[in-house]
Amino acid sequence: MRFDEAYSGNVFIKSHPNFEESEAVIYGMPMDWTVSYRPGSRFGPARIREVSIGLEEYSPYLDRELGEVKYFDAGDIPLPFGNAQRSLDLIEEFVDRVLAADKFPLGLGGEHLVSWPVMKAVYKKYPDLAIIHMDAHTDLREHYEGEPLSHATPIRKIAELIGPQNVYSFGIRSGMKEEFEWAKENGMYIAKFEVLEPLKEVLPTLAGRPVYVTIDIDVLDPAHAPGTGTVDAGGITSKELLAAIHEIARSDVRVVGADLVEVAPIYDHSEQTANTASKLIREMILGWVQKRK
Amino acid sequence: MRFDEAYSGNVFIKSHPNFEESEAVIYGMPMDWTVSYRPGSRFGPARIREVSIGLEEYSPYLDRELGEVKYFDAGDIPLPFGNAQRSLDLIEEFVDRVLAADKFPLGLGGEHLVSWPVMKAVYKKYPDLAIIHMDAHTDLREHYEGEPLSHATPIRKIAELIGPQNVYSFGIRSGMKEEFEWAKENGMYIAKFEVLEPLKEVLPTLAGRPVYVTIDIDVLDPAHAPGTGTVDAGGITSKELLAAIHEIARSDVRVVGADLVEVAPIYDHSEQTANTASKLIREMILGWVQKRK
Amino acid sequence: MRFDEAYSGNVFIKSHPNFEESEAVIYGMPMDWTVSYRPGSRFGPARIREVSIGLEEYSPYLDRELGEVKYFDAGDIPLPFGNAQRSLDLIEEFVDRVLAADKFPLGLGGEHLVSWPVMKAVYKKYPDLAIIHMDAHTDLREHYEGEPLSHATPIRKIAELIGPQNVYSFGIRSGMKEEFEWAKENGMYIAKFEVLEPLKEVLPTLAGRPVYVTIDIDVLDPAHAPGTGTVDAGGITSKELLAAIHEIARSDVRVVGADLVEVAPIYDHSEQTANTASKLIREMILGWVQKRK
Amino acid sequence: MRFDEAYSGNVFIKSHPNFEESEAVIYGMPMDWTVSYRPGSRFGPARIREVSIGLEEYSPYLDRELGEVKYFDAGDIPLPFGNAQRSLDLIEEFVDRVLAADKFPLGLGGEHLVSWPVMKAVYKKYPDLAIIHMDAHTDLREHYEGEPLSHATPIRKIAELIGPQNVYSFGIRSGMKEEFEWAKENGMYIAKFEVLEPLKEVLPTLAGRPVYVTIDIDVLDPAHAPGTGTVDAGGITSKELLAAIHEIARSDVRVVGADLVEVAPIYDHSEQTANTASKLIREMILGWVQKRK
Amino acid sequence: MRFDEAYSGNVFIKSHPNFEESEAVIYGMPMDWTVSYRPGSRFGPARIREVSIGLEEYSPYLDRELGEVKYFDAGDIPLPFGNAQRSLDLIEEFVDRVLAADKFPLGLGGEHLVSWPVMKAVYKKYPDLAIIHMDAHTDLREHYEGEPLSHATPIRKIAELIGPQNVYSFGIRSGMKEEFEWAKENGMYIAKFEVLEPLKEVLPTLAGRPVYVTIDIDVLDPAHAPGTGTVDAGGITSKELLAAIHEIARSDVRVVGADLVEVAPIYDHSEQTANTASKLIREMILGWVQKRK
Amino acid sequence: MRFDEAYSGNVFIKSHPNFEESEAVIYGMPMDWTVSYRPGSRFGPARIREVSIGLEEYSPYLDRELGEVKYFDAGDIPLPFGNAQRSLDLIEEFVDRVLAADKFPLGLGGEHLVSWPVMKAVYKKYPDLAIIHMDAHTDLREHYEGEPLSHATPIRKIAELIGPQNVYSFGIRSGMKEEFEWAKENGMYIAKFEVLEPLKEVLPTLAGRPVYVTIDIDVLDPAHAPGTGTVDAGGITSKELLAAIHEIARSDVRVVGADLVEVAPIYDHSEQTANTASKLIREMILGWVQKRK
Repeated sequence: MRFDEAYSGNVFIKSHPNFEESEAVIYGMPMDWTVSYRPGSRFGPARIREVSIGLEEYSPYLDRELGEVKYFDAGDIPLPFGNAQRSLDLIEEFVDRVLAADKFPLGLGGEHLVSWPVMKAVYKKYPDLAIIHMDAHTDLREHYEGEPLSHATPIRKIAELIGPQNVYSFGIRSGMKEEFEWAKENGMYIAKFEVLEPLKEVLPTLAGRPVYVTIDIDVLDPAHAPGTGTVDAGGITSKELLAAIHEIARSDVRVVGADLVEVAPIYDHSEQTANTASKLIREMILGWVQKRK
Repeated sequence: MRFDEAYSGNVFIKSHPNFEESEAVIYGMPMDWTVSYRPGSRFGPARIREVSIGLEEYSPYLDRELGEVKYFDAGDIPLPFGNAQRSLDLIEEFVDRVLAADKFPLGLGGEHLVSWPVMKAVYKKYPDLAIIHMDAHTDLREHYEGEPLSHATPIRKIAELIGPQNVYSFGIRSGMKEEFEWAKENGMYIAKFEVLEPLKEVLPTLAGRPVYVTIDIDVLDPAHAPGTGTVDAGGITSKELLAAIHEIARSDVRVVGADLVEVAPIYDHSEQTANTASKLIREMILGWVQKRK
Repeated sequence: MRFDEAYSGNVFIKSHPNFEESEAVIYGMPMDWTVSYRPGSRFGPARIREVSIGLEEYSPYLDRELGEVKYFDAGDIPLPFGNAQRSLDLIEEFVDRVLAADKFPLGLGGEHLVSWPVMKAVYKKYPDLAIIHMDAHTDLREHYEGEPLSHATPIRKIAELIGPQNVYSFGIRSGMKEEFEWAKENGMYIAKFEVLEPLKEVLPTLAGRPVYVTIDIDVLDPAHAPGTGTVDAGGITSKELLAAIHEIARSDVRVVGADLVEVAPIYDHSEQTANTASKLIREMILGWVQKRK
Repeated sequence: MRFDEAYSGNVFIKSHPNFEESEAVIYGMPMDWTVSYRPGSRFGPARIREVSIGLEEYSPYLDRELGEVKYFDAGDIPLPFGNAQRSLDLIEEFVDRVLAADKFPLGLGGEHLVSWPVMKAVYKKYPDLAIIHMDAHTDLREHYEGEPLSHATPIRKIAELIGPQNVYSFGIRSGMKEEFEWAKENGMYIAKFEVLEPLKEVLPTLAGRPVYVTIDIDVLDPAHAPGTGTVDAGGITSKELLAAIHEIARSDVRVVGADLVEVAPIYDHSEQTANTASKLIREMILGWVQKRK
Repeated sequence: MRFDEAYSGNVFIKSHPNFEESEAVIYGMPMDWTVSYRPGSRFGPARIREVSIGLEEYSPYLDRELGEVKYFDAGDIPLPFGNAQRSLDLIEEFVDRVLAADKFPLGLGGEHLVSWPVMKAVYKKYPDLAIIHMDAHTDLREHYEGEPLSHATPIRKIAELIGPQNVYSFGIRSGMKEEFEWAKENGMYIAKFEVLEPLKEVLPTLAGRPVYVTIDIDVLDPAHAPGTGTVDAGGITSKELLAAIHEIARSDVRVVGADLVEVAPIYDHSEQTANTASKLIREMILGWVQKRK
Repeated sequence: MRFDEAYSGNVFIKSHPNFEESEAVIYGMPMDWTVSYRPGSRFGPARIREVSIGLEEYSPYLDRELGEVKYFDAGDIPLPFGNAQRSLDLIEEFVDRVLAADKFPLGLGGEHLVSWPVMKAVYKKYPDLAIIHMDAHTDLREHYEGEPLSHATPIRKIAELIGPQNVYSFGIRSGMKEEFEWAKENGMYIAKFEVLEPLKEVLPTLAGRPVYVTIDIDVLDPAHAPGTGTVDAGGITSKELLAAIHEIARSDVRVVGADLVEVAPIYDHSEQTANTASKLIREMILGWVQKRK
C-alpha cells in the first residue's frame, strides 16, 4: 500500500503515478480467511493487475479511453493473515483516507466481507447512500456457524446500518430461506436470477442519489467466472454484466465508489476470470468515476 | 452400497440416515468402461456428493428446502471394473430393490449406459412409462464398433423395449445420420438443439403418465459442463437446464425416477461441472420426488 | 506438409488420402511468434486434428455427412521458428499451389497474422474478393510496437490491398480508438459485439461475390473458447457462431476459402476449445466447400 | 467430528467404526486462515482420506497390515472460518479428550499452526515430552507481521513451553537468520537440509522418552509434494521420508502422537501429494501406534 | 492398426514406413477398462507418439542414432471399449503376426493387463522365456474383486504359465501380503524398492536366455511420472530407470520383446510423463532391438 | 525497462530502488519466438519476480541475507515480438550499459538464445572470459532448420567467438551426434549427465579467471522443473543444482555475470519451477555478486 512513497508491486494498466492528482484510487484487499468453502481470493487483486497489460485502453462500448481518467493504484492493503477484525479496521481506515481526499474508491477483493468496512466508510460520507449489489448469494446472514465476521454476512451488516430499503440486490440465486424472508419482511429489494432488466427499473428511482456498487464476480455463471470460491450454476453472462455496468453509467445515479470481489485465480487455468475482471474494472473506470460529482 | 448397514463413504448433503423412512434413494453407478472417448465418469458420483457441502439447502426457484424431503444416499453400487454385463445386472438388481420398497430412484453416473438397466427396472413397474431424455447425443446406436453394450446405445435399447413413440429426446445435436433416420421412421420424438421450448409442448401430452427422466450432463454446452467425456459445442446453458427441470416440476407428469450421468471431474479444473450437477440434483429432489404419486 | 508424398502426422477425421481428387485442402500454419500476449497457437492445428476423432461425421444442422465432400489434409506447413517474413512467404507459396489446383483452401492457425498471406493469395485469383472477418479484435493496426508483421495487423493489410470497403468485420469488441476511426473514415464495415444479426443484413449485399471467411476463435466468449491467446469477455456463444456458419452456407455468396485461427490448447484443460474448433471445421467443410463454384 | 454418533463424511481406509475400541484416532484440522502465502490446506484432510481407497492395506516395508491396528477416523474438527484462537482452542479440547481416553492422536492438517494446541495437549499428559519436527521451515518466529497466531510460529511456541532443548528439527532449509540464531542460542537441535542421517544420530539419545512427531509435507522437495502452500527447492525425496518413518518405528523412542500437515490439494493436479500423504499415514499407523506403550 | 495399408494417425519419430523391412514394430494397446482406480491410459500410446517429435534422434548414453534401427509404427490396435476378453484376444493375435514375421514387438499401453496376451504370444515362440518386470506393484492377484481379467493380475498369469521361477520383478513397493507370500512360496524373484542393483545381480544368471521386459511407468516415483493411474511414493528416479535400460542393453540376455505401460496423460499437466516415456522408448529401440538375435 | 525512471511492474524481492547505487542488475529477457517446441518462457521473468515474495531473505546455505547485497531490478527489456535479430540487439545494448556502469548483469530468460548477446557483451569487457554452461541440451547447432538465430544455437555461437576451449558444459543429456562430435573435435569440455562432480574438477583450473554462468532450468530433471519448454528425463535434482551454485561461490573463479533461462510457467500448475528459479536467483545473488572483483 502506498500513498506517495515508492512502490514495487505491479499496478493496473495506465494508472497514474500520483495519488494527489488522481480522481480515483484502485486498491486491493487480499483477504480470504473467513470463507467457508474455497479460499484463494487473496491473490485476486494481484492477478487482475497482472493480466491488465493484455487490455486495450479504449472501450468501444463507451467510446472512451483510459487516458481520459486519472486513477492511482495504491497496491494491496497489507492485512494480517487470519485476523478478520484487524483486517476490516485497516480497510476502513484506508478508505477513510481515500474519501477524505475526495477520491473515488475502487476496490479489488478478496472475499466479499471486505466490502463491509468500505461501505461503512462511504456511508459516513454519504448519509443518503444506496447500495447496488450484484451477486449469486444474498450474503444476508447474521453470522456463519457462530461467526459474525464472515463472507456470508456483509450485505446484512450494511442493510442494518443504512436501512434495508436502501439496498438493492440483483442476480441472486442462492441463500437460506431465512435470508430471503428477512429481506422481504424488511423491505429490501432482491431481484432473483436476473440483473439487467430489474436494474433498468430500479435505476430511475435512484436518480441523483449517491450509490455504491459492489459486484461479486460469482454473479456471473461459472462458465464465465470459474475462478471464484463458490461456483453456482444459472448465472448471467459476461455480456449481460457489461451491459449492466453501462446501464448504470448512462443512468442518473451518482456512483461514489465500487468494488469487484471474489476472484480466486487458482481455480481458473485459462485465467479468463481475471481477464474478465480487468475488463470490468476498465469499464467501471470509464463509466462510473466521473459520475460521483 | 448400503441399505441399512454402516457406511463409510461421503453422502449427498442432508441425506436421511435411514433407508426405510426415505422417499427417494440416491445411488452412484461408477462405471465408465464402455466409453469410446474420454473415461473418468466413474468418479462423477463421489465428486458430486463431495461438493454438495457447498450447496444451500434452500431453492429460491422452488421455494422449498431439502429438509422437506427425505432421501437416503446409498453410496456407490460396487461394480466389477471392465465387466459391462455384470455391472448392468447389478444396477438393475439394485434398482429393483429400490422400486420394490416404493422409493424414487435417483441415480448418478457414470457413463450413460448405466441408465439402460435402470429404465428397464422402472418399466417393469410402470408399463405405461415414458422417457424424457436430455442429451447432446442421440445414443440410438444398435452397437458401437460391434459392441452392443456401449455408452452410445442406451436410448435405442429402451426405445426398442417400451416403444420408440414413448421416448422423447431433447437438445440433441450429435449422432449418425442413421440414428436420426431410425428415430424418424419409428415415430420417436427428437427435439434438435433446443430443450425448454419443445419440452413445454411435449409435457401436456404426457399429463398423468409415469415418466423417467435421464439427463446426460453434456446436453449443456461445454462452457457450462467442461467436465464430461465428450464435449460438443452448441449446447444449452445451465440456466436453461434449470428451467427445464422446473418446467417438469410444475407440469402434470408423474416423475417416477431420474438420473444425471456423464460427469467426469478430471477434465474440469474449476469443478464447476460437479457443482452444477449437485445443484441440479437438489432441484430434482425438491421438484420431482413428490411427483411420483 | 505434403502433396502426394507419404506423411506421418495425424490428419482431420475422414480426410481423403489423395490431393488431386480432393475439392478442399486442410493445412496447418503453426506460427505464433509475433503474438504480443500468450503464445501457444502453434499447437492448435495438431490438436484440432487429434480431437476430430471424437466428432460424428454427420451434421444434424446441415443434414450432410463428411463422406459427401472430398478434402485432403496436407498436415502443417513447416515454418521457420521465429522468422515471421519467411513463414508468411511459405504460407503464400503453399496457398498459391492449392489455388492453382483449383481447390478450396481451409487453413488452421496459428496466430491471426497467418491469414494475411492466405488472403493475399486468394485475392490474386479473385480480384473482386470480399472478406468476412469474425473476431474479438479489429486487427487493424499498422504495426505493433514498431513491428509491421504482427498478429494485430492482418486485417489492416488486407483492407489496404483490396480496399476497406470490401472487408466486413463482425463481433468486434476490442481495439484501439484509432483502429475504429480508421475503419469509419475508410468505409470499412464493422459490426460491434454482434455477429448473426448484422451478418444477415450484409450477406444479401454480397450475393454472387467470392468471399473469404477468416474466423478468430476469440470471437467466442472466453466461456466458449478459453484456449486462446487473448481472452476477452462479452463474446458470442458457440451456438451463435454455428448459426453464423450456417447462415453463410445458406446465403448466395461464393465462399472461396476460409480459416480458423488462434486456438492455443495449453490454456484449456478440458480441451473444449479444440473440440469446438473441430466441429466448426466440420460445418465449414459441409456448408461452404461446394459454394465456391 | 464424531465420537460415537453417526457420521456422514468419508474416512481413511480400513478405519474402525468404534471410538472406544480403537488404539488411535485420526482427525482432520481443516484450518488455513493464518497462512501468509497460498491457502488451501483446509481441504488436505478430506482429500487424503478420499485417495486412501487407492492404498494397499499391506506395507512391504514393515510387513504389517492395517487390519493389525484399530484406528478410528473422527472426521474433521469443525472449525470457525477465520477465527484462529477459537480454532486452536477447539483442537486442544478435542485432543484432550483423545488423550484422556488413552488413544494415540494422529492429526491431519491444515496449516502447521494446528500442531501447536495438539503438542500443548500432549505435553500436559507427557511432561518429559520431546518433539521431532520435519519441515522445510524453522517455524520459529515469535509472530508474523505482528500476529502471534501464525503458521510461522508453532515450533517457537512449543519450544518455549517444553524447553528448546527438547525440540529436534530436521530437513530445515528456510527461515530468518534470527530464527536460526535463536535456536542456536537456546540449545535447540536443527539438522539443516538432511533428515535421515541426523535422525539416526538423535534417536538413540531419546530412547525411552515420549516423542511427538510433527511432519510438514514440505520437508519433501517440491518434486515430491507440489501440493502445498510454500514450495521450496532442495528438499528430500519421498523415499527418504519413508525411511525416516521406518527408522523411528525401529528405534526405542515411545511415539505418543503425530501429525502430517500442509497438504493443499489444489496446487497438485496429479494428486501425488495427497496420495503420498495417505501412504505416509499408513506407515505411521503401522509403525508408530503400538510404540506409545 | 496397419500392416501395409495407408494409415492416418501420428507415428513415433523416425519410424520406418514399411513393415516388411523393419526389425521392430511399435504398436499401441489403448485399453484401460479393467483399472480399479484412475482410467486414462488408453490415450498413453497416442500422446507418447505425439511428444516424440521433441526427441533428439541421438542417444548420448548409447552413442547410437534412431537411423541405425528400422522400426515400423503400426498405430494403435483397435480394441472394443469395455470388452476385456476380446481386447486381449485381438492383442495376442496381433503380436502373433509380429512374431511370425520375426520382428521385435515393442508395445505401448494402456493398462498393464495388455502385457498378458503379449507375453503369452512371446512364450509360444520362446519356451525358455524369462520375464523382467519393473513396477511399483506386484500385479500378482488371482482376481480383483472377482474379476480374473484385471490390471492387478498379469504377472500372476504369466508366472503360472511359464513358471514363477522365470519371472523377475524389480522396484516393487506395493501389493497384498498374499501376493508377496505367493511369490516367496513359489520361488519367484522380487526385488523390493530397488531396481538397478538387484538387476545387476540377476542379469548374469539370465545370460543367453530370451527375455521379455515389461515396464510399468509407475515404477518411477510420482515425482518422475505423475501421469499414471496409481501414483505411489517411494519410487525410483528416471535416471535410475534409464540406467536399468542401459544395464540390460550391455548384458548378455537376448531381449525378444518389450512394453511400456500405464502412461495416463490427463493427470500430468506438464506432459513430463509422456515425454519421459518417449525417451525410454528411444533407449529401448537403440539398446534392445538388436539384442534379440 | 528502466534505469532511473519510474517503473510500474513488479520486482524481485528486496531489490534496491536505485540503479547507480547497486552492485548488480536483474533484468528480464521475455523472448520465446525461436523455440522449436513449447513456447511460454516470455512469462518466466515476471513470474519469477512475482513468486519471489514467498522467499526468505536469508540463505541457511551461505549464511547471508539479501540485505547484504544491493541489486536493482530493471524490469523486462521490451522486445519486439517475433523479431529475433532486433531483440538480440536490444539485449546486447542493454547489457553494454550495465557493464559500462560496472555492475553485475543477472539475466532472466526467456529462451536460451537470449544468452548469446549477453555473453557477447560480457566478452567485450572480459577478453579472457570462460563460460560455465549448465543445461540438458548441447545448444551447439549452427542453425535450426535453416535458422541461425535459434534457441538451439547460443553455445555454438559463443564457443566460436571466444574459442571452444573456453566453454564448459555440464549436465548435458541431449543433442545431435554432430554436436557432441563438434565439441570433441574442437576441444570443448562437456560433462555428460552430471554437474557437481565434474564441476569440482573444472573449477580449480579456472581460478582467477572471469567466468559467466548460464543456467538453463532444464538441466534439472522434469520432476524438479516441469515448467519449461523441453522436458527431458534423467536430469539432476534441485539439491544438486543448489550445491553447484554454492561450489562456484566457494571457488576461486571470478563470476562476472550470470543468467537463468527457459522457465515457462504455463506448464507447471504448482508453480514449483518459478519458485525454484527465484530461490536459485537468491543464491546466485548471495554467492556470486561479490565474486566479480
